[in-house]
Amino acid sequence: MAKDTNLKRNLILAVDAMGGDKAPEIVVKGLNLSCNKNAGIRFLVFGNKDKLSPLFQKYPDLEKITEIRHTTHYITNDDNVAHALRYGRESSMRLAIDAVGNNEAGGVISAGNTGALMAMAKFVLKTLPGIERPAIAAHIPTKIGKSLMLDLGANIECNARNLVQFAVMGEVCARQIVGLEYPSVGILNVGAEDLKGKESVKEAANILQNIDLPIKFHGFIEGDDIGAGTVDVIVTDGFTGNIALKTAEGTAKMFGSFLKNALGSSKISILGSLLAKSSLDDLKAIMDPRLYNGAMLLGLNGICVKSHGGTDSIGFSNAVTVAANLISSNLNENIKKDYSRLHETE
Amino acid sequence: MAKDTNLKRNLILAVDAMGGDKAPEIVVKGLNLSCNKNAGIRFLVFGNKDKLSPLFQKYPDLEKITEIRHTTHYITNDDNVAHALRYGRESSMRLAIDAVGNNEAGGVISAGNTGALMAMAKFVLKTLPGIERPAIAAHIPTKIGKSLMLDLGANIECNARNLVQFAVMGEVCARQIVGLEYPSVGILNVGAEDLKGKESVKEAANILQNIDLPIKFHGFIEGDDIGAGTVDVIVTDGFTGNIALKTAEGTAKMFGSFLKNALGSSKISILGSLLAKSSLDDLKAIMDPRLYNGAMLLGLNGICVKSHGGTDSIGFSNAVTVAANLISSNLNENIKKDYSRLHETE
Repeated sequence: MAKDTNLKRNLILAVDAMGGDKAPEIVVKGLNLSCNKNAGIRFLVFGNKDKLSPLFQKYPDLEKITEIRHTTHYITNDDNVAHALRYGRESSMRLAIDAVGNNEAGGVISAGNTGALMAMAKFVLKTLPGIERPAIAAHIPTKIGKSLMLDLGANIECNARNLVQFAVMGEVCARQIVGLEYPSVGILNVGAEDLKGKESVKEAANILQNIDLPIKFHGFIEGDDIGAGTVDVIVTDGFTGNIALKTAEGTAKMFGSFLKNALGSSKISILGSLLAKSSLDDLKAIMDPRLYNGAMLLGLNGICVKSHGGTDSIGFSNAVTVAANLISSNLNENIKKDYSRLHETE
Repeated sequence: MAKDTNLKRNLILAVDAMGGDKAPEIVVKGLNLSCNKNAGIRFLVFGNKDKLSPLFQKYPDLEKITEIRHTTHYITNDDNVAHALRYGRESSMRLAIDAVGNNEAGGVISAGNTGALMAMAKFVLKTLPGIERPAIAAHIPTKIGKSLMLDLGANIECNARNLVQFAVMGEVCARQIVGLEYPSVGILNVGAEDLKGKESVKEAANILQNIDLPIKFHGFIEGDDIGAGTVDVIVTDGFTGNIALKTAEGTAKMFGSFLKNALGSSKISILGSLLAKSSLDDLKAIMDPRLYNGAMLLGLNGICVKSHGGTDSIGFSNAVTVAANLISSNLNENIKKDYSRLHETE
């Protein structure tokens, strides 16, 4: 009986409806797309009721599974973290996080200010036992599928212990969410040899080589291993991870723009590209950033997902699926289990 | 008269013929391709004469402008830097660097071990006045042309002063080598806002904002600005720069592989891709890494260029052109001039 109640509660997702460039419109549209994709899900939506109610009225099925909680306060992208923490207690973002903190919802999703979301979530939810710093993790496309990469920007500087904790969390996530039986983990570095790189990455590699957990540690990987899909989980500090992720995005955009120009450069290549259209559309679909939307704030004592602020309803809906999967996979219990085993061996 | 002698000496390029995966074959082939591209150039080639002489005999035009200096020693990619410095004094790499140090040649090129090349070149040639650490710089393709990026791996950790020196060297290089009148310079960071990022990048940005040099400082850029071509010169530490460069290379490879698979996936798309072949070949040419081969070791008191170890003769020949341009543009004199002006204002 207790389990049933727990399950019911966990399927409720708290939503910050006012975060992101095109909020609340794309948030509501995205939730509507998610209705049918995630059976049994319900939404607790925080934001300005005057703006939200007319939007929800367009989608009767969505309206049935949604409760709107009114607030006129919200966090902007210009708000700094300290300001958000101090003055944002009535904001849609904070109230959505609070709903996870007081067990009204199983997870929270926001497309708003990343720094404020991380800081408020850390303040309200705290971190999991043994995890000093939460990390931002996301899936990225590779030549052979997708990999999970963390940290993507929560922690500018990381020591070896932080990196080891990211490895443990990432490995559990790849097992539970992606469904890999025995995911491989690599640390991003400037060379594959043991002697190269920063002290922090060398020390982290040394710990992971000798760790008493069933982690398949690959060792160091280089930047080009990301696209090659050499490992399932890529561990790095938030400065490098953020720059690597955005560099990959920028390169993909550049390539897409070159391809578009090349195929439109003559009548005969336009004809050729029309014939190859369905294949080129498949290619576009593989690289569609909306499919990878939904960054996980791992290491918090509660599920928290960040949607890209500039995404559309399809992207937002994908982030909802990420949150739903994190909740239903019991991710945090599994991180706790692995991490406590690691602690015992220290 | 003195100027003429100087010019004549400067057109001599010292070549480590034994460095790189396919040395000395691709080195000799690459030099042959360079014969006609760089008028008046001459080569002083260091390596095993027994292996080199038969190769040069195939190219009588090249043979005429080449002097081979015999040595059987060479540095391998597995040699660590300390070993190379201590025991590599008779190696083809070291002797080629010495030829620049003793003014026999105007510059040196090697496709061998990067760490050893940087360490030996720094030991023999020393750094330019005011430059504490040399950096590895290279051109990378962007949506609108190409940018110069440094450091690509010489310095794992950099302080603000190092980054400012990279900015000065990179700016001079973009002016002298690329021929830009007023190149823009950006520092790679995790956000465009002043408050974000590492202390070292924030401090460097602050210095560059107030510097008494005609540098067009753009401020911070993010990873996706690399492919977008937002600035002409991208400044970063060697850890981040190496990972960003290789991430971009890996993403381009991934994209190329997706494109190839997509266009070969059905008869109709094969037909389409045949019609668009010339445009697709143009695209391939823009992204051809051989065109960007030839990394510059900037900040040394002498011209030193590193070719990719895995490149072919076309790539090696491109690196020769980079070296020839660096020599003929008087790059180091211009860096010295700018740097001394900067020093006076401190």
